[in-house]
Amino acid sequence: MNDRLGRLRDTTINLAHGSGGRAMRELIEDVFVMAFDNPALAALEDQAVFPLADLVRHGDRLAFTTDSYVVDPLFFPGGDIGTLAVSGTVNDLAMSGAKPLFLSCGMVIEEGLAVDILRRVAASMQRVAIEAGVSIVTGDTKVVERGCADKLFVNTAGVGVVPAGVSISARRAQAGDVVIVNGFLGDHGTAILVARQQLALQSDIESDCAPLASLVAAMLDTREDIHCMRDATRGGVATVLNEFALSSGVAIRIHEAALPIREEVKGACEILGLDPLYLANEGKLVAVVPAHAAERVLAAMHAHPAGRHAGVIGEVVAQPAGIVVLHTGFGGQRIVDMLVGEQLPRIC
Amino acid sequence: MNDRLGRLRDTTINLAHGSGGRAMRELIEDVFVMAFDNPALAALEDQAVFPLADLVRHGDRLAFTTDSYVVDPLFFPGGDIGTLAVSGTVNDLAMSGAKPLFLSCGMVIEEGLAVDILRRVAASMQRVAIEAGVSIVTGDTKVVERGCADKLFVNTAGVGVVPAGVSISARRAQAGDVVIVNGFLGDHGTAILVARQQLALQSDIESDCAPLASLVAAMLDTREDIHCMRDATRGGVATVLNEFALSSGVAIRIHEAALPIREEVKGACEILGLDPLYLANEGKLVAVVPAHAAERVLAAMHAHPAGRHAGVIGEVVAQPAGIVVLHTGFGGQRIVDMLVGEQLPRIC
Repeated sequence: MNDRLGRLRDTTINLAHGSGGRAMRELIEDVFVMAFDNPALAALEDQAVFPLADLVRHGDRLAFTTDSYVVDPLFFPGGDIGTLAVSGTVNDLAMSGAKPLFLSCGMVIEEGLAVDILRRVAASMQRVAIEAGVSIVTGDTKVVERGCADKLFVNTAGVGVVPAGVSISARRAQAGDVVIVNGFLGDHGTAILVARQQLALQSDIESDCAPLASLVAAMLDTREDIHCMRDATRGGVATVLNEFALSSGVAIRIHEAALPIREEVKGACEILGLDPLYLANEGKLVAVVPAHAAERVLAAMHAHPAGRHAGVIGEVVAQPAGIVVLHTGFGGQRIVDMLVGEQLPRIC
Repeated sequence: MNDRLGRLRDTTINLAHGSGGRAMRELIEDVFVMAFDNPALAALEDQAVFPLADLVRHGDRLAFTTDSYVVDPLFFPGGDIGTLAVSGTVNDLAMSGAKPLFLSCGMVIEEGLAVDILRRVAASMQRVAIEAGVSIVTGDTKVVERGCADKLFVNTAGVGVVPAGVSISARRAQAGDVVIVNGFLGDHGTAILVARQQLALQSDIESDCAPLASLVAAMLDTREDIHCMRDATRGGVATVLNEFALSSGVAIRIHEAALPIREEVKGACEILGLDPLYLANEGKLVAVVPAHAAERVLAAMHAHPAGRHAGVIGEVVAQPAGIVVLHTGFGGQRIVDMLVGEQLPRIC
C-alpha cells in the first residue's frame, strides 16, 4: 500500500499548508520527512514511540528541554536558523551530561515564505542532527497570515539520557573550582551584527554555532567530577557565570587577560559599545570543575575540534556570594552583573 | 541562599524579557515558575532531569510529540491558547496509549503584550496540566519586535510512556472494525468562528478543548485491542479517517445519521458553507476497534465525563482501499476527501 500523496508543487507557503489537510501532508512528506529521513517520522503518526530499553542503555535519567528560535536574519555566516535550532537544543541536553537522542521540530511559518527556504533549513537541521547523533522524530507545522510572523520561527524540544554517576548542576560550584571555556567568545553575536549590516565593518567572523555533545562526551570520559556546565547563549558568558554564582552561593573571579576573544570581535564591540562577555555564543560552554581536575579535562577538550582553544578563565571563591568579578589587565576589578536590558534582540 | 531576583515590575513585555539576562529571569521566575510550580522548573536549569526508573513503571516505550499553537483570538469561549497548548499535546501522547508525564513550554511573545495575558495563559496551562496529570518541567521564552509576531505563539512538546502490550497505530485499521467518536463534533471550530465574530449568530457554543488522557486510560483498562486512535483537530474527523484509510489500506464507511453534531454547529455550517466533518475539535478522538470490542469500549467511555456522548459512527471495510465514504440520510453516498485548501486559518 502506497500511502504517499503527490509531490508538493507549490513554491511558496500558503495558509492551506497549515490546514491539517492534504496540502499540509504534502508539505510534511515532501520537505520534512524527506530531509529528516527516519522511520519514526515517516510513520506520520502524531507522536514518535521508542523502546525504553534503548534509553536505559545510555544511563539512568531522562533529560528534556526546549527552545524556540526567532533569529533574524534566517541565514548568517556560519549557520542558519536550522543549524541553530538543532545545535541549541542538543547543547542544552549535553550541558546536563546527557547523550542527546531525539528532537522534535515545530515550525511557525509566515504565509508567503518560499518553500526553498524551508528545504534549506530542513537540510541544515538534518546535517547538524547527524553530526550530533540525534534524530528528528516528530514535528508540527503551523502557518500564519502574512504580517503575523516574521518569516519562520522554529521550536525544537529534545530528549536525552544522563549517564549514571554524572551530576552537573548550576548549584554545585564551590570554592577551589576553576572556570573553563572551550574557545573564542562572542563570535555568534558578532556574525549576526555583521549579517544585519549593523556594523560598518568588513568581517570574516562566522557564528560558532555547533553541537557540543561529542565534546561533552569527551570531557565526561575523563571521569572527572564536572560540577557545573552551561552553554553561553543569550546573555553570554557573563550571564552564565552570574547564574552559577547565584545558584551555588559563591563568588566567581575571571581574568580579562585569560578571556579568548578574537581581535575582530573586540574591534566590533569597541565600535558599538558592547561587551564581549555579554555577546551570544552558540557553540561555547562554561564548565566549572575542581582545580585538580582541570588539567585532564582541558587535555580532553584540546583533543577535540570544538575544544582546541579551551582554557581556564577564572576560579570560584567563597565570598562575596552571588557576585562575579572581572580582574582587568591593569590590576583593577569590576563587578560583572547579569545582562540588564537588551543587547541584541533576536540573536537566536 | 536566596537566589531569587526581584519581582517582575513591568506590566508589558519588552525586548529585554527575551534577552537572556535579568529581565528574562524575572519574567520566568515570576510568571512561569510561579504558575507551573514544580521543582524541576524551579531549579532554573536549561533542562529537566528525571529518573528513568520512574518512567519504566508506567510501561515499556517512550512517546514524544510536539505542537505549536497560533490560535486567534488567544481567548475564546471554552478555553484559550494555554488550555489548547496543554490539551493538544497531552492528547497527541494519549492517542498512542501513552500516559502523558512531562511537558515543555516554548513561548514566542510579541513586544508590547500585557504581562497579565501571560499570567492568565500560564494559569490555564497549569490548570489543565493538573487535570491531565502532567507537569510542565522545562521552558523557554523569546520576544520579537512589535509586528513580527501576532501577540503570542506557544509550543508544547510532551513525553509520556506507553504501557506494555498497547499497540495503537494508523496502520492497524482492518475490515470488521468499527469507528467510534467520543462526542459532539465541530464545537471548537464553531466557537472560534463565533469568537472572531465571523458568524452573525448569537451562540452559546464553547470549545470542547480538554485533555483526554483519563478517557483513554479508561478505554485501555477494558483490555480490548484498540487498533487506531487519533484526535480530530485541524482537518476534523474527515482528515483523521482519511489518514487511517490511507495508512491501513482500507475503506471507511460512516453514516450521516450517526454523527453527533449539535444543531447550533449544523446551523453555523449551513450559513457559512462549511462541513462539520472538517471542523476542528480539541477534545474529540476517533478510535477504531474490532466490532466485538465496541460494546465494552463504549461502556467505559460512557462512564467518563469526556465520553458521555460516545458512539459508533461507521465501520471499516476492505475496498475501495484508501477511501472514506459517507452514507447520507437519504440513502446516498459521497466520498469524503481529505481537507483540500484551508477552512479556518489559525484554529489552533
